[in-house]
Amino acid sequence: MAQINITKESPSFWRASLDNPPINLFGGQLVVEMRALLDAAENDPELTVIVFESANPDYFIAHWDLADDLSVLANQPPPVTGQQPFVDVMVRLSKLPVVTISKIRGRARGAGSEFLLATDIRFASRERTLIGQFEMSTGVPPGGGAPSRLPRLVGRGRALEILVSAEDFDGDLAERYGYVNRTIPDAELDDFVTAFATRVAAFDRGALAEMKGWVNAITLPDDNEFPPQSATFTARLGSARSQRWAAGAFAAGLQQSGDLEERLGTRSVEF
Amino acid sequence: MAQINITKESPSFWRASLDNPPINLFGGQLVVEMRALLDAAENDPELTVIVFESANPDYFIAHWDLADDLSVLANQPPPVTGQQPFVDVMVRLSKLPVVTISKIRGRARGAGSEFLLATDIRFASRERTLIGQFEMSTGVPPGGGAPSRLPRLVGRGRALEILVSAEDFDGDLAERYGYVNRTIPDAELDDFVTAFATRVAAFDRGALAEMKGWVNAITLPDDNEFPPQSATFTARLGSARSQRWAAGAFAAGLQQSGDLEERLGTRSVEF
Amino acid sequence: MAQINITKESPSFWRASLDNPPINLFGGQLVVEMRALLDAAENDPELTVIVFESANPDYFIAHWDLADDLSVLANQPPPVTGQQPFVDVMVRLSKLPVVTISKIRGRARGAGSEFLLATDIRFASRERTLIGQFEMSTGVPPGGGAPSRLPRLVGRGRALEILVSAEDFDGDLAERYGYVNRTIPDAELDDFVTAFATRVAAFDRGALAEMKGWVNAITLPDDNEFPPQSATFTARLGSARSQRWAAGAFAAGLQQSGDLEERLGTRSVEF
Repeated sequence: MAQINITKESPSFWRASLDNPPINLFGGQLVVEMRALLDAAENDPELTVIVFESANPDYFIAHWDLADDLSVLANQPPPVTGQQPFVDVMVRLSKLPVVTISKIRGRARGAGSEFLLATDIRFASRERTLIGQFEMSTGVPPGGGAPSRLPRLVGRGRALEILVSAEDFDGDLAERYGYVNRTIPDAELDDFVTAFATRVAAFDRGALAEMKGWVNAITLPDDNEFPPQSATFTARLGSARSQRWAAGAFAAGLQQSGDLEERLGTRSVEF
Repeated sequence: MAQINITKESPSFWRASLDNPPINLFGGQLVVEMRALLDAAENDPELTVIVFESANPDYFIAHWDLADDLSVLANQPPPVTGQQPFVDVMVRLSKLPVVTISKIRGRARGAGSEFLLATDIRFASRERTLIGQFEMSTGVPPGGGAPSRLPRLVGRGRALEILVSAEDFDGDLAERYGYVNRTIPDAELDDFVTAFATRVAAFDRGALAEMKGWVNAITLPDDNEFPPQSATFTARLGSARSQRWAAGAFAAGLQQSGDLEERLGTRSVEF
Repeated sequence: MAQINITKESPSFWRASLDNPPINLFGGQLVVEMRALLDAAENDPELTVIVFESANPDYFIAHWDLADDLSVLANQPPPVTGQQPFVDVMVRLSKLPVVTISKIRGRARGAGSEFLLATDIRFASRERTLIGQFEMSTGVPPGGGAPSRLPRLVGRGRALEILVSAEDFDGDLAERYGYVNRTIPDAELDDFVTAFATRVAAFDRGALAEMKGWVNAITLPDDNEFPPQSATFTARLGSARSQRWAAGAFAAGLQQSGDLEERLGTRSVEF
């Protein structure tokens, strides 16, 4: 794969490193590769745990690639869940019969935040985490699941704050809100997550899958919640407000390394 | 209005200051004024954010005015939701197509706590917050929504503790329990909330309303939960136990400035 | 009773001390005694609060007694809820029309954790708490309610971490996750819980029961969730993996005082 490097630490423990320089944008190519990863994971009889991490310590996943024309998806089969392509992989990810862990270091905004919300467990660097749903600052609501997943995770009040403010949340606040399971000092994060995954990878895959199914039944969103959110997201991306934002933001360095992306939660309101 | 001072900081950002000396009791007049505010807010095409605050730094809203005969409601039209008059305004408040923020400084017990639970986001003074559902100490369960809103916000265990103990919760514990979003040092609270609201007020009202609707659908109580709670509240207010409590508490300074109201979470059990 | 010592601090406040040396295992005899306690509690017109505590400061409830043949249940009537015998008492416990409080000091794993999750309120010793669902390390998923109760209490992410890791959680982390209401310094825990229960015991039992019923309706699991979990638990206990674990663990000191039980969350993976 081009943007996901899979390391099989053992038959039951895979490490998936996201690597799309310069800032780990999520676009059509990553959708295609996630489909392949999900196909493999759904059918592997030994796999028990996947750890998702980033090759870039400053960006877990920056956000959706707004410059991607998605032509890479043209020759692909339609999404198996019938959802919009990004939501399709998030829904499949959330229902995998294996344990999924996000090891968060750096920024994860918009679709990046929605990705980590679709995994089961979130461990974050205490010093180097900045996550949020910056969409509202661009004129559109999140379209990839956050309005369904966040309230169930952190409750109505904190979810509305995260969603309507479009601000960045650092590790400390993300942990206090339950947006991540907990933070780990950055110097210990890698060893901590490896030890955790190694431990779980030795457990019985069938028992884990059955147990996760019970939890899924009472915690996952109803799949019917997503299509209206995806449709609104797409429709509002074409609005004058969103187009004006994109023009200004791209001119100021959006989707490039540099200050705008580093402080996007703060600076996005400039445009 | 007599008890709500509305300042339009901009067409999209209203500040509503509650002012009913000496301790900001919530009674019939405030119901009438809240209806007017809700009518205006539901129909204003530009309004995006309302911040609710108190003119009295010691009381956000003390509690329901137990001495009010509600005669002011006699000539009013019936509640549009069909709920009991206080619940009616709380239900409408929770469903407003704009973002509502409680800036909490001072005490909010009983109906005061239920008011802030009906707003979307709660920011509280770290040093000057005391909130709780003191009703059980008076012989009645809360009747204005707390048994439906609190468990969804803080979980069964902490909600039951808050509801059955009838105790005051300070800012630190309220934040740890998720009863408020977070606390802010008192000296910074005003600027923090103004900056937050100003930021959100610049976002697209339509997109915010649509997104809040998605969150409402999965987080708000079913409206059918409220009438049995309201009916029990009213019925038990007439019980000998509740009447004895009221007689003792009024004789000791209830609804006046002073020690009893300041320490009501502790002292209410005296009667 | 042999394993539950009930002290009636007052007609409305019962203290139930669990005492099954050496490590407070939960087996058939405790099921029988819990049924008797529940029968009494469901029918006592004055009882308002029960505090559950342990006579052993190192173990609240170690876990289910895996050596118990349950012959003591042979002459008992079938469970009134139709659930598996342990689940039956947990379901009845969670629905009692009185307030139930776990005062947690020491270890509570597996069924011990499920017991405290079935009570309403959990206060824990800050220094001396170790709780968890160690089942997955033995080859079986929890079968007594944890997969249904934990996600509703602490959210999907933290519940999955607790369930799949099978690790011990200390007081600090348990409080941050909402697994317990809060921790209290060990030296203050007894007085704190006694004061809390004494306060609540003076309130109106009928009003409390009605309010708890409203909370039950929106927070308790659907009873139909439990039977598949119980059935899987029982079936997997007979698996080669689980049998191998049990053989190794019993040989190393399982269910005896000593290092294995003290550090079971860590050491269970040895077998």
